[in-house]
Amino acid sequence: MRERLKEKPNEVVCRNIFEPAMRDDSERSFKNMMRVNIAHVLMLHKQEIIDRHTAKCLVSMLEELQEEGVSVLELNPEYEDLYFNIEKYIICKGGIEIGGKMHTGRSRNDLNATVTRMNARDRILEMCELFLETMKTITQLAENNIEAVMSGYTHMQPAQPITLAHYILSVASALQRDFERLLSSYKRLNICPLGGGAFAGTSFNIDRMYAANLLGFDSVVENSIDAVASRDYLLEIVADLAICCSTISRFAHDLYIWSSDEFKYIEVDSSIAACSSIMPQKKNPITIEHIKAKAAYLIGSFVGIFGCLKNIPYSHCRDSGSESPREFWIAMDQAKSIFELLNVTMKNLTINHENMRKKVNKNFSTVTELADELVRKEKLSFRKAHEIVGSIVADCISKGIEADEISVEMVNKKCEEFGEKNINWSEEELAKILSAKEAIKRRTSLGGPSPTQSRETIDKLKDQFERNRRVCEELKSNVIKSNELMVYLMKNI
Amino acid sequence: MRERLKEKPNEVVCRNIFEPAMRDDSERSFKNMMRVNIAHVLMLHKQEIIDRHTAKCLVSMLEELQEEGVSVLELNPEYEDLYFNIEKYIICKGGIEIGGKMHTGRSRNDLNATVTRMNARDRILEMCELFLETMKTITQLAENNIEAVMSGYTHMQPAQPITLAHYILSVASALQRDFERLLSSYKRLNICPLGGGAFAGTSFNIDRMYAANLLGFDSVVENSIDAVASRDYLLEIVADLAICCSTISRFAHDLYIWSSDEFKYIEVDSSIAACSSIMPQKKNPITIEHIKAKAAYLIGSFVGIFGCLKNIPYSHCRDSGSESPREFWIAMDQAKSIFELLNVTMKNLTINHENMRKKVNKNFSTVTELADELVRKEKLSFRKAHEIVGSIVADCISKGIEADEISVEMVNKKCEEFGEKNINWSEEELAKILSAKEAIKRRTSLGGPSPTQSRETIDKLKDQFERNRRVCEELKSNVIKSNELMVYLMKNI
Amino acid sequence: MRERLKEKPNEVVCRNIFEPAMRDDSERSFKNMMRVNIAHVLMLHKQEIIDRHTAKCLVSMLEELQEEGVSVLELNPEYEDLYFNIEKYIICKGGIEIGGKMHTGRSRNDLNATVTRMNARDRILEMCELFLETMKTITQLAENNIEAVMSGYTHMQPAQPITLAHYILSVASALQRDFERLLSSYKRLNICPLGGGAFAGTSFNIDRMYAANLLGFDSVVENSIDAVASRDYLLEIVADLAICCSTISRFAHDLYIWSSDEFKYIEVDSSIAACSSIMPQKKNPITIEHIKAKAAYLIGSFVGIFGCLKNIPYSHCRDSGSESPREFWIAMDQAKSIFELLNVTMKNLTINHENMRKKVNKNFSTVTELADELVRKEKLSFRKAHEIVGSIVADCISKGIEADEISVEMVNKKCEEFGEKNINWSEEELAKILSAKEAIKRRTSLGGPSPTQSRETIDKLKDQFERNRRVCEELKSNVIKSNELMVYLMKNI
Amino acid sequence: MRERLKEKPNEVVCRNIFEPAMRDDSERSFKNMMRVNIAHVLMLHKQEIIDRHTAKCLVSMLEELQEEGVSVLELNPEYEDLYFNIEKYIICKGGIEIGGKMHTGRSRNDLNATVTRMNARDRILEMCELFLETMKTITQLAENNIEAVMSGYTHMQPAQPITLAHYILSVASALQRDFERLLSSYKRLNICPLGGGAFAGTSFNIDRMYAANLLGFDSVVENSIDAVASRDYLLEIVADLAICCSTISRFAHDLYIWSSDEFKYIEVDSSIAACSSIMPQKKNPITIEHIKAKAAYLIGSFVGIFGCLKNIPYSHCRDSGSESPREFWIAMDQAKSIFELLNVTMKNLTINHENMRKKVNKNFSTVTELADELVRKEKLSFRKAHEIVGSIVADCISKGIEADEISVEMVNKKCEEFGEKNINWSEEELAKILSAKEAIKRRTSLGGPSPTQSRETIDKLKDQFERNRRVCEELKSNVIKSNELMVYLMKNI
Repeated sequence: MRERLKEKPNEVVCRNIFEPAMRDDSERSFKNMMRVNIAHVLMLHKQEIIDRHTAKCLVSMLEELQEEGVSVLELNPEYEDLYFNIEKYIICKGGIEIGGKMHTGRSRNDLNATVTRMNARDRILEMCELFLETMKTITQLAENNIEAVMSGYTHMQPAQPITLAHYILSVASALQRDFERLLSSYKRLNICPLGGGAFAGTSFNIDRMYAANLLGFDSVVENSIDAVASRDYLLEIVADLAICCSTISRFAHDLYIWSSDEFKYIEVDSSIAACSSIMPQKKNPITIEHIKAKAAYLIGSFVGIFGCLKNIPYSHCRDSGSESPREFWIAMDQAKSIFELLNVTMKNLTINHENMRKKVNKNFSTVTELADELVRKEKLSFRKAHEIVGSIVADCISKGIEADEISVEMVNKKCEEFGEKNINWSEEELAKILSAKEAIKRRTSLGGPSPTQSRETIDKLKDQFERNRRVCEELKSNVIKSNELMVYLMKNI
Repeated sequence: MRERLKEKPNEVVCRNIFEPAMRDDSERSFKNMMRVNIAHVLMLHKQEIIDRHTAKCLVSMLEELQEEGVSVLELNPEYEDLYFNIEKYIICKGGIEIGGKMHTGRSRNDLNATVTRMNARDRILEMCELFLETMKTITQLAENNIEAVMSGYTHMQPAQPITLAHYILSVASALQRDFERLLSSYKRLNICPLGGGAFAGTSFNIDRMYAANLLGFDSVVENSIDAVASRDYLLEIVADLAICCSTISRFAHDLYIWSSDEFKYIEVDSSIAACSSIMPQKKNPITIEHIKAKAAYLIGSFVGIFGCLKNIPYSHCRDSGSESPREFWIAMDQAKSIFELLNVTMKNLTINHENMRKKVNKNFSTVTELADELVRKEKLSFRKAHEIVGSIVADCISKGIEADEISVEMVNKKCEEFGEKNINWSEEELAKILSAKEAIKRRTSLGGPSPTQSRETIDKLKDQFERNRRVCEELKSNVIKSNELMVYLMKNI
Repeated sequence: MRERLKEKPNEVVCRNIFEPAMRDDSERSFKNMMRVNIAHVLMLHKQEIIDRHTAKCLVSMLEELQEEGVSVLELNPEYEDLYFNIEKYIICKGGIEIGGKMHTGRSRNDLNATVTRMNARDRILEMCELFLETMKTITQLAENNIEAVMSGYTHMQPAQPITLAHYILSVASALQRDFERLLSSYKRLNICPLGGGAFAGTSFNIDRMYAANLLGFDSVVENSIDAVASRDYLLEIVADLAICCSTISRFAHDLYIWSSDEFKYIEVDSSIAACSSIMPQKKNPITIEHIKAKAAYLIGSFVGIFGCLKNIPYSHCRDSGSESPREFWIAMDQAKSIFELLNVTMKNLTINHENMRKKVNKNFSTVTELADELVRKEKLSFRKAHEIVGSIVADCISKGIEADEISVEMVNKKCEEFGEKNINWSEEELAKILSAKEAIKRRTSLGGPSPTQSRETIDKLKDQFERNRRVCEELKSNVIKSNELMVYLMKNI
Repeated sequence: MRERLKEKPNEVVCRNIFEPAMRDDSERSFKNMMRVNIAHVLMLHKQEIIDRHTAKCLVSMLEELQEEGVSVLELNPEYEDLYFNIEKYIICKGGIEIGGKMHTGRSRNDLNATVTRMNARDRILEMCELFLETMKTITQLAENNIEAVMSGYTHMQPAQPITLAHYILSVASALQRDFERLLSSYKRLNICPLGGGAFAGTSFNIDRMYAANLLGFDSVVENSIDAVASRDYLLEIVADLAICCSTISRFAHDLYIWSSDEFKYIEVDSSIAACSSIMPQKKNPITIEHIKAKAAYLIGSFVGIFGCLKNIPYSHCRDSGSESPREFWIAMDQAKSIFELLNVTMKNLTINHENMRKKVNKNFSTVTELADELVRKEKLSFRKAHEIVGSIVADCISKGIEADEISVEMVNKKCEEFGEKNINWSEEELAKILSAKEAIKRRTSLGGPSPTQSRETIDKLKDQFERNRRVCEELKSNVIKSNELMVYLMKNI
């Protein structure tokens, strides 16, 4: 195959380029590459580019190799890559008259572009499963905590009462958008480059749609240069997952803080904690740390792929074809770990409801309600009410009074100071205003923390889950059916 | 407003945080912030949270301020931000009884989250226009060059004949995917956070869908924490544009190479070139360099935003609310420049068809056709044919023979060497095989370089352009109509 | 100057390239560009490339322009950039016979490369000042808290007792390495490209060292291509600051957590806090959030610059010359903000020593000491001691016993369980072992938390500060002296 | 060891965290971890923290394990990591009374921090070797091409004549700065965290300098928190290599362009080229593509590490301790490949001197010399000369005249047009001015393209090479000597 070159590849080239690629492809690509080989042969036969006998021989040799597995090939880096090793094997076995026809009307460029998309498709379908599982787990976690009143935070300072469910649902809502993004990228991934040839199509009368169909693609990457040059889908999928993991890093960060001894809102179970080699009391929430850290790799990979593709020709070249997918697989591995660790963490948490409840009634989270009530009941403008309550809080803090100790008298004193008339509330009424549990109930605005709102959101998420599940199943089933069709055709040449 | 804090903000805080944000918001956000203020007041009135008189006064003051513009405010950094300066102004003018009611049932958090989305929407709609223009220009460029035969390259080495149109259409096809990506992100952008409050909704009986509708949003960001915490749409849009600009950097790179003196395939016009201060002969294609370079900023911004959001609480905080959008505006400015420069470049190119044609017939681009023809006519296996032709080429190069000088005799000599029978072609037949122009015509596989294929692709792109244009117009028109409705409602309180 | 091009630059080119660059250069580069002009003229005169009269006229016109400022130039984008506008102005004023000689033996390429390095030098010297101030503040903060016992954390879980000083000094030590890195980059920045010409030197008999010396450079970038092509120093400085800000983001993160209501170890003063527009109780530590967020821009800029430079020629081009420094200035602005905000934050913190002290004796931070003492006094192996104490802690937690309630009896019970003999300690001895304050005193290993160690570290940091200060002063003074020399020479042509 | 936790680690945790880390550490860290274990035991003995017998037993068991290798350990992920497996093994073998004492006065945190630095040191020393080899190869390449006149480019347009040596030396000069950067980072890497303990030192009377010395460190990371928390050196080294590879990507890009059929300045040898599976004429310079692409991973890794470290506590945690180094090893692997591929490429290039020479005299690269000569001989101002020559070139191009066909008459015609007197040169004189070879000779300015300058630079680089080599040897020899000392001490307990 290297007739034009005459020399064997240099050892440094083998060691740094051919061998690692071949090793990697043996594990990652053999199965899909064999499928593409078979689909191509079936197409060549259908189009009468090769005759029935040749097709039958090729398919039977390929089928046998598929079953025996990649290990029967004695991979030789001097043949440059996995494909040439396969072709060499087929030619050895079936002779050049037969074996030498397998590659008619195509190139390694469109072959590898196709295999890479199929490998990526396998990974994205796996990610969809993990997404589904995660959506289930997180929705369950919310459902278990609809009434779990706690302090919500802005700027990490106690802000207003929420429930744990309300918080969890904020993350679930963001993840649902992430899932949509990933699904939306599928249609730009699942298009078939086969038939693009080296980059300029072919003068053989091929049928691109036929081969695409056998390989489970929805359509083809039409323009033949685009077919071999484009790796935009790698960037898109990694970006989707990076965006998702940016949110997950924030979720994990909150869990991390809440599992501190000082917050003690949650506690990870021993099975997901690590100990210390010297501090006997330790129970470290390490899954959370790994989730946060691994999120960084997604962005690193995005940058890596982008860098590979920056300022290179829009055609086939090694930068895009061989190198740019490398970071993609790393990103997918890490994303998978992140999702698995997030799931196992959410399933192995103990929630300290009592502690949450105690804090929220003490830490002035509820005083916005007091200002709002002054607006509603006393017809104060909100700004004036805000000023009055702000001044009450400042007094409380300086005197060490906690939020649930604010009295009608204190409010009235401030009203007078600010030139407003006294309020005419009972202490019970005031206490109710300052109760986090009561506040939660009142906060029924759309998407707010009230249990009724959470319940509605959970119902919507469950419906959405079913829709998501069906979409994923259909995607997978399309791939499987295409493969079944191909197997049928193989047997009936 | 800083009652609880008592102290004025420190000068360092004003200089590094409040002032730059206020300055930036004055330019970028005033218009949209005023719209949100008005929509909120209209909603408060409709829901009977404020009375008709208050609503009328507030709207009239806001309308007046809107007309006078941001410059009538004497922005004071001690009030922290643009909104507090506006509220202060309204309270000064209308008294706290009226002015102090504007902020009922909301927070700066949901207000700013809403304004940021509206600002981003303005920018994305602007980008859509630029995308449309670019698609038009690039399709035109292809259409003008359907027959412009040239050498295609893989690994920057002459590979097979294509046409300039075929190349241009490969980029256009990729850009169409980029456009789809951008449009697809619109639905995750154009949802309204208003009503999320500080992050925990409100106990006032607000109508979130009503306000969202007045502001041209398709829906709301339902969960109130998600509403103020999420900035995933910033990452998504920047990723979309980064992916697009990765492809554009490759396109620009090819133009750059082709405008070299050695390739001389294209020449930029003087109006887009720069000269040298000392080299009198210079005509530098600087727009191409800036396009390539600016593509880097998109990825820089993506990393910047991701970094802002890494490991922060999923709630409102300054990292996400104030800082993370900063890089977004930079990215949008740069993307705009890239598109404008790309357009002006494509419109000011001279194509050197003659030079393209000359090269392609000399540089062995056409020999794959010879191998293919040996397969078709002489029934050789492709691998054998490839070996024979590879050996012919090696001989030619060592003897300084060019591709269009290959003779039937040379082919036959090699056939014999490789144990194959002679070919029985005339020199004319061989010459036709080795003619790039003829090769192009034969390469009619779907998406291949033949003029018929290019013509079909162009027709599809033009149809697609119309669909894209209609979608963009509808998006814009929805925003405009909502605003008109709001203006109508303002006049009819 | 655009004789060869004949056409005026296109409006899109002016708007996107020439105008922004010219505007930016007017603010950033005018002063240094004028210095380079003068130094170059003085050198041309010294080398007798221009005569005394020409030199005198040029210097006097340049001096006048320097004094009048950039605003006297009516900047015209059609002249491409600031330099051509200056040259045009000089030629208008002094005639082409004089003015046209200013640019002899150089190019805009080496001119701009020189100005960029001088601008960068100004910024790095400014950063050095900020570094010095920060080292002073942080050392002071440590010194004020040498005895401030607190709980140290690993994995955000209480781990072992430290002091606040010990923690602060860990950050100070890292910052000192960052400072060294920045200073070390200075020698690769402060070398002069002038004389590199367009990229290929010149055949005029110039004296590069002379001009470099007048401009305060330590030496020259020798190879003329390297002189105009290299922007590695931009990447190096931004990397230095990114690395530094990575550590600062961790420091800020700890301050952020510690200022939570749940930790309450520190409280930011009102002057650096922001309030809420609706939550009257809020006092948000926003400087910390901005510090964390802004750290992300440094990495974004690094990526941006790297992306600009990826796969471009190693020579002069716009990607490196005009675009790559753009992100550098952004990075420097943000780094400056980060340092200013960090300083103002450290100076406006209230430390809650009482709360720190209370927590550390309760949260099992001290039990490693118990294990260590079992090793020392009872000759247990550390692993066995660790097991025994681990088991004690598990019991305590399950029974709600706090660390300072561990009794000799409890220890003995466990010793028996693990097959070890009883300990023979008094309760007082055990209490001392479990006292954080006592633990701190014992931890005198080099760099450990004991006050004696902290004191030593502080003394070293103060010495180091003096050394740093002297280095910075010398760097600045070298630049000033060179400029003074140039002023002297200008007056004595 | 997990007494406190009671439960076994969850399968998901083992699969995603413990197992991959253990596998990775077995390969990467075993050797250095064993060294640290031994050094620590020797130190404990010297300080009389453990007795002679214990030390002897431990050292002998460790020595044995060292020899047998990691494979004798049956790694169990339930013990969390490699270290715990080693300790378990030692305890099994030597009993807890002996084996349980190995970990006295330290922690896995300082142990792993130390091992990571030692692993990184091994890699940086390996990179130094590669740097040296590269400097040698590149200097040789320059030396072989001192007289190889070629066209230099700015903005990828022919600009002025240079030699290939002059270009090569520009890259070599940049690489020398990169080498300095890497060496400069060594002193911030080669400091020992051992003795930092978990993060808060220890109350055992350890001798940190002693252990550091045995392990080949120059000094210690003094502050105990800094010791375990800091990973800044990872970022620094990766930044150093990223900066270097940014320049290498530019060098590779130039080689890539020059190896195009259109430039044909260089040709890669067959041994480093790849062929095509279908295009028989292909000889693709793939090493260059991989070099360019791999450069992207360095920046990706930098971003990944930075992201890991963003907003985490400044103390020990998994984000910094376990995850952040992960991208470092990837970066080092890729950097190694880049250097090896660059070396093999530079050594397997054929330079087409003839083609270089032909182009440079035709493509107007030499006309700056004409302008300069008009300044020198005719006393024109440079700007006027530039205008005249610019106008000549514009005429030539429009008439298809090449640079070496410019005649005295043409110059004179233009001089008149621009109001200048005729020149009085012979055609020979003009031809000499317009000869690239002559131009090169005249360009003797410091660092310019003249062969004399190149020769001087090469001499300096060779001297520098010797200095670099000595530094590298000393660094390596220090590590070796320390190890020898440790071996001696082991035998003489």
